[in-house]
Amino acid sequence: MAHRELTSDVSDGKDEWERKERLVQVMSKDPAFDKRGREWMTRTEKYSRGLRMINRMYDLENSLGWNRQDTTVATGLLDESLPISLHVTAFEPVFLLQASPELLDRYAALTATRGIFGCYLQTELGHGSNVASLETTATYIPGTKEFDIHSPTLSSSKWWIGALGKTATHGVVQAKLILPGGEDMGPHLFFVQLRSLETHKLLPGITAGDIGPKAFDGTPANDNGFARFNHVRIPKEHMLSKFAQVTDDGKYVKPPHAKISYGGMLYIRSQMVTSAGWITARAAVIAIRYATVRRQGTKGHDGLEKQVISYPSLHTRLLPILSRAYVYIGMGRALSRSFQTMAQRLSTGDASLLAELHAVTSGLKVLCTTSSVQDLENARRSMGGHGYGAFSGIGKVYADMVPSVTYEGENFVLDQQAVRAALKAFKNLFGDDGKSRPSSSTLQNLPPSTYYLRLLIDSKEPPVLHDASNNSHPPASSSSSSWNDPETLILLLEWRAALLVHEMAQTVEDPDATIYQRVSKGTTEAFVARRVGEMISGLRANSELKKQDVGVLGRLYLLFLQTTVESALSDLLSFSLLRIQNPSRIGASRDPTRGLRMAIAKNCLALLPEAIGLTDAIGFSDWELDSALGVYDGRVYQALWDTAQLEPLNAKEVPDAYEESIKPMLLRGQRMASKLDRTKL
Amino acid sequence: MAHRELTSDVSDGKDEWERKERLVQVMSKDPAFDKRGREWMTRTEKYSRGLRMINRMYDLENSLGWNRQDTTVATGLLDESLPISLHVTAFEPVFLLQASPELLDRYAALTATRGIFGCYLQTELGHGSNVASLETTATYIPGTKEFDIHSPTLSSSKWWIGALGKTATHGVVQAKLILPGGEDMGPHLFFVQLRSLETHKLLPGITAGDIGPKAFDGTPANDNGFARFNHVRIPKEHMLSKFAQVTDDGKYVKPPHAKISYGGMLYIRSQMVTSAGWITARAAVIAIRYATVRRQGTKGHDGLEKQVISYPSLHTRLLPILSRAYVYIGMGRALSRSFQTMAQRLSTGDASLLAELHAVTSGLKVLCTTSSVQDLENARRSMGGHGYGAFSGIGKVYADMVPSVTYEGENFVLDQQAVRAALKAFKNLFGDDGKSRPSSSTLQNLPPSTYYLRLLIDSKEPPVLHDASNNSHPPASSSSSSWNDPETLILLLEWRAALLVHEMAQTVEDPDATIYQRVSKGTTEAFVARRVGEMISGLRANSELKKQDVGVLGRLYLLFLQTTVESALSDLLSFSLLRIQNPSRIGASRDPTRGLRMAIAKNCLALLPEAIGLTDAIGFSDWELDSALGVYDGRVYQALWDTAQLEPLNAKEVPDAYEESIKPMLLRGQRMASKLDRTKL
Repeated sequence: MAHRELTSDVSDGKDEWERKERLVQVMSKDPAFDKRGREWMTRTEKYSRGLRMINRMYDLENSLGWNRQDTTVATGLLDESLPISLHVTAFEPVFLLQASPELLDRYAALTATRGIFGCYLQTELGHGSNVASLETTATYIPGTKEFDIHSPTLSSSKWWIGALGKTATHGVVQAKLILPGGEDMGPHLFFVQLRSLETHKLLPGITAGDIGPKAFDGTPANDNGFARFNHVRIPKEHMLSKFAQVTDDGKYVKPPHAKISYGGMLYIRSQMVTSAGWITARAAVIAIRYATVRRQGTKGHDGLEKQVISYPSLHTRLLPILSRAYVYIGMGRALSRSFQTMAQRLSTGDASLLAELHAVTSGLKVLCTTSSVQDLENARRSMGGHGYGAFSGIGKVYADMVPSVTYEGENFVLDQQAVRAALKAFKNLFGDDGKSRPSSSTLQNLPPSTYYLRLLIDSKEPPVLHDASNNSHPPASSSSSSWNDPETLILLLEWRAALLVHEMAQTVEDPDATIYQRVSKGTTEAFVARRVGEMISGLRANSELKKQDVGVLGRLYLLFLQTTVESALSDLLSFSLLRIQNPSRIGASRDPTRGLRMAIAKNCLALLPEAIGLTDAIGFSDWELDSALGVYDGRVYQALWDTAQLEPLNAKEVPDAYEESIKPMLLRGQRMASKLDRTKL
Repeated sequence: MAHRELTSDVSDGKDEWERKERLVQVMSKDPAFDKRGREWMTRTEKYSRGLRMINRMYDLENSLGWNRQDTTVATGLLDESLPISLHVTAFEPVFLLQASPELLDRYAALTATRGIFGCYLQTELGHGSNVASLETTATYIPGTKEFDIHSPTLSSSKWWIGALGKTATHGVVQAKLILPGGEDMGPHLFFVQLRSLETHKLLPGITAGDIGPKAFDGTPANDNGFARFNHVRIPKEHMLSKFAQVTDDGKYVKPPHAKISYGGMLYIRSQMVTSAGWITARAAVIAIRYATVRRQGTKGHDGLEKQVISYPSLHTRLLPILSRAYVYIGMGRALSRSFQTMAQRLSTGDASLLAELHAVTSGLKVLCTTSSVQDLENARRSMGGHGYGAFSGIGKVYADMVPSVTYEGENFVLDQQAVRAALKAFKNLFGDDGKSRPSSSTLQNLPPSTYYLRLLIDSKEPPVLHDASNNSHPPASSSSSSWNDPETLILLLEWRAALLVHEMAQTVEDPDATIYQRVSKGTTEAFVARRVGEMISGLRANSELKKQDVGVLGRLYLLFLQTTVESALSDLLSFSLLRIQNPSRIGASRDPTRGLRMAIAKNCLALLPEAIGLTDAIGFSDWELDSALGVYDGRVYQALWDTAQLEPLNAKEVPDAYEESIKPMLLRGQRMASKLDRTKL
């Protein structure tokens, strides 16, 4: 493997790779960003450490003259979920997009420089996904030209709000706008100062604090908070009124178009694909390095036990994870470009790309978060006992990442949105009864999200599969097997998507227990598979890659497609899509799926010598990975030993619990034993 | 639902239920067992708290006259993974089974009364599953009649040993027995004192400590430890020599039969089925209660948003989890009885049941631990955002439970053992070429673990399925559908097991990527399904149950079978086992699996009114669940609010991080903002 070229490719070009290297050089040596000892800090210490890191980062930004992109990359390197991310990704974009010119004039600069620290107060104790049911009110008072922000009930308390607990000075509050006549105009946004800029104390009428620890000790440095408002008055100008407004005398002025505010949500979701890729990459790098160093079981010719990665039960688990890392990173990059195009058009009032990006990002968010969380856990488990140690470095990443399946659109709710988009596209093409026939020009203009629907035209037939991946004699060329042909695999996944949507459209009045999940997954995987096909074609066109690397990456992307097809087998079999011309006939195998599974086993074996090259190419430093099992030099046992010595329980040879509990228990036992009749034991 | 009768049934009879009630009464009010505040303790505080609980528990055992079973149940109620469990479940049984009469005479009473505190030192830093590769040596010195215990390398350090870090005074060490001539006799067990009973300091030559925190902050009260031995001498009598021995002059005396020591391992694995059941039950109770209280989305006739449990995407996730809880609890009980029978026979030298129990427990351990961990996480996710709060009460249980998939036999390794047992049984019946035909008496005597193999006789045919669960007009009776017939579902799972084993036997020289997992799961699920069939028959024979409860439990067990079949669909379709006589023809459905999925949806809907009854019947107190979302009275928002107020970060209105980090950052930003050219923003 030629690392440097590949690294540049993964890192979005040489410049980005050099930027990261430069930042890692500075930050990994800075005491503020030292990761040692963080595992046994208290929650409060972890929070304080997080704030120290943020402050230090902006200090460096200032002194070293980082630009915005430098700071963004540096934030990513901090490897903690921090309150500042709520300021940057939630508060600031909403504020800049929707505040009135007057408000911008006063606060835009302070927002950009973190002279104020913002948060975004949407969810409530009793209300999550369904924004329409939020209870917090913002009642307009014409006499004083103020809004009265109020939390009428316990369940209306704002809850889960990142950075609200102890950090934020200001916030954008989502509240029902109530007009003077009592009319409820539904949720709108209001800019509210929460804490004094002099003392950091909460302003009158506001009760706020941290909601407490999270599962798995996740995101401890982020002060997710609660807030109740007791008739807090804010000036009328503090309504974010670029679109909807209230006149001085309390009349409502409608926004020009309602969807303008979706942009931010789509941006966050499209970013989640990229981060899922990098998170998955971390897990793959750590687990593959450890599996290469770890020896267990049968002894080889060299008298050593075998490297565990040589066992199929390990490499057939780990290499597909690596393939997903590469695919999601590449796809996230393409998605960011699509998002920028859409945002540009949206800023000129052209919302034509919005629906397409919405459909794509809903399903992708579900797929990528679900799979990256699962891959983290599977990689951790692949490391056996040591994987359960905190120093494996994966547990913390999982703990921070796992809420991604329930936030920014709960995955089961998003599944329904993805399905709705697919059904709408189906009906547009084939009519309510599914019997219309679209024109060929309509079919040629199908957007990527529903490109698979072209297959439902009567003349199309699913592919017939050639299965030559068995070990018949003489061995057939594996390239002649359909299981090694990307286009066939993509077509199978597209056929599955098309038939699932067709099925769903026929039975939509009476859905079965899992159809939404299956359709969402099926349609999204068809979209992804087609993108992976493009990535494979793109490899050949990439003049910076060596020929050998093109081959290796091609195999890796093929593995992604093969394992995606494998996970789709029950659908493919249900819809009779496994039309195999020459099924495996090894011994008396009766299993038509064996050809695919063998192709996966063989592809993994072929990729095995490249595993370390492919993981090194991702370019993580030891400081970034912070894993005793994923150290670059492979000295994992020394790293585990050294780290264990730092455990605070080891500071005293005899723990405090000895005098308090252990000694009394032993003495009691010794007294009892001396009285026991030993013959009765 | 008639709770009391059902509770007795779940709890293994009225006596057991009353025992638990009695213990909960005492313990839930005892300050030592108070669970409040444990989330934000440091690791060291959590460890100290654990020891306090253990000491207090034995204090109560003494003062209240608890018997052994009382103490066992009380330990379970402590709801923490504690070092004492290593003494009780690992150290004590091995010591009692294998120590010589002399050693027993000196230490058995002390062991029983916790006058000494034991641990079991097997795994090493570099060696886990493969005991044969352990590096620690025990070299016999005839001159002094001593063994020299030594850790020759870093990787030979004992590692992960529960209770070793700071607590244990003694341990059983697994080490290679080296005879005076240098001959390596492989791993044997040695009783070693680790710490002084006067001062609790480590004895000379021993370096030991805690290995540090675990992933997800799991099992923090357990001091998993490391130890290195530097030529530590122990008397010859300290070899556990009931079976293998060394003579005074250093000759080896073989054990009578090698498998004698498997008993303990099988016991632990069989217990894991029961605990998987109870853990799954916890998750189901919490998530179903919360889903019943939580309202979100569309408003109903009462003007309130719908209870989220009424959404199919929730109840079709949660009710199958509940069904697994009931099944595993019931099955674990049956397994304990089998274990006792086997142990009795084994003690008289009859090892005939050992192989059967080994085959059964290998696969079951994999199945139950994998599914309970997954169910915990799925239940947690079903609670959306609040599920990620530590106070949901599931995160901690997951963190403590998740290593069960890698300890006591790593699941992927155990899969291979389960497969090996299945293949052996297949070859015994059908010969190496698979073409022999067993006699009918052989077939009639098939043990439960391979009962499914009877189906491979030529005359047998897979069942033809009747699919009447569609909504055709007039609606067919759902009882006439094969998808609602337990025996058909069991048969399908048995056929799948039989064909998978047949397939594996044909292709064993060239296994595909996932065949071991599929065969292990398939054969184990066939075994479990047959047991569930027996449980359904048993319901009718249980005179203590009301007729209505028999119906409800029958539906619940049916749901278990239906969802097991659903998860087996790709195998069932691969082997053409879905032979449907009258497939669903709703609209233009082309999906032969729809009938099953509809049956699941309908069964869940029918069980929905019983969900609270079935969860209450499990009989958890609020103290046991320790979940703000699973409180019995349903006041979840008040519980969340109250608990959040205890978060230490909330003790100060302005956190220490303000002066240290937040204020400097805000001031820097304000200075920068005042200098910015606003027109450029």
